Amino acid sequence: MENIEQHVAFMRMAIELSMQNVSECVGAPFGAVVVKDGKLVAKSANRVVAANDPTAHAEISAIRLACLSLNTFDLSGCVIYTSCEPCPMCLGAIYWSRINTIYYANTKADAADFGFDDKFIYDELDKPMEERMLPVVQMLRDEAVAAFKLWETSPMRIDC
Amino acid sequence: MENIEQHVAFMRMAIELSMQNVSECVGAPFGAVVVKDGKLVAKSANRVVAANDPTAHAEISAIRLACLSLNTFDLSGCVIYTSCEPCPMCLGAIYWSRINTIYYANTKADAADFGFDDKFIYDELDKPMEERMLPVVQMLRDEAVAAFKLWETSPMRIDC
Repeated sequence: MENIEQHVAFMRMAIELSMQNVSECVGAPFGAVVVKDGKLVAKSANRVVAANDPTAHAEISAIRLACLSLNTFDLSGCVIYTSCEPCPMCLGAIYWSRINTIYYANTKADAADFGFDDKFIYDELDKPMEERMLPVVQMLRDEAVAAFKLWETSPMRIDC
Repeated sequence: MENIEQHVAFMRMAIELSMQNVSECVGAPFGAVVVKDGKLVAKSANRVVAANDPTAHAEISAIRLACLSLNTFDLSGCVIYTSCEPCPMCLGAIYWSRINTIYYANTKADAADFGFDDKFIYDELDKPMEERMLPVVQMLRDEAVAAFKLWETSPMRIDC
């Protein structure tokens, strides 16, 4: 790992966000920082309760702020420091954002030990759809595929 | 499936959003609708390009709007109709939101056939972390766990 001091400083920033979120009674103990070329782009703690938004985990909130700051939906060239291994939602968001590297501290097993459901959701995603706790029903596929066919001919067809 | 006509009407609404998003050159061919007790709560198409937000898939956007409308981060009792099988990010968001049932039309394989990366991300999540395309590095776990310990004593400790 190059620039170890820099990595440590940004991860400590993420950890500090996670601590502060609890000590200030804002929300759950998670923080994340997005960095590009060694410079801070955006940072956030978990904002689920504060924003009434179940998707406002620290990583997703930091990604949204980074996109706002850089005026793009493509964070290629950025890295993320997160105080905990991302849940499947946040891991998916990191892939879609094209972030280059994830640095994390606590594991999903640590999160599970303290009552967070990350591991449960990982376990669910590992199961075939029909064995999951959450019922899933397919319908009208024949009608829906028309939108994909329309997309094929769209002048707007860019990689999104 | 009870109330088949109602299910068909809401799924057609999701499909219409996916078609309209392409025909109006707003974004990718995906739409989602959140419903509670047979009534529409929120609906959205994919807003990634329009909002410069890689997390603004149709399902996540509809969930955020539903939470805003119902003034809660807990969508228990709601169901979601989505024009395509959710990607791991959106599936995670659906779990965190506590939505009760997913109705979907196109499959992730259909999405892959038309150039969308959902299946790639599913495949990545199935691999052990060290075999994924996206580099992941653990560091400072000993320092980060302090936030979880602080959380255990927080008066704010509610299920979030």
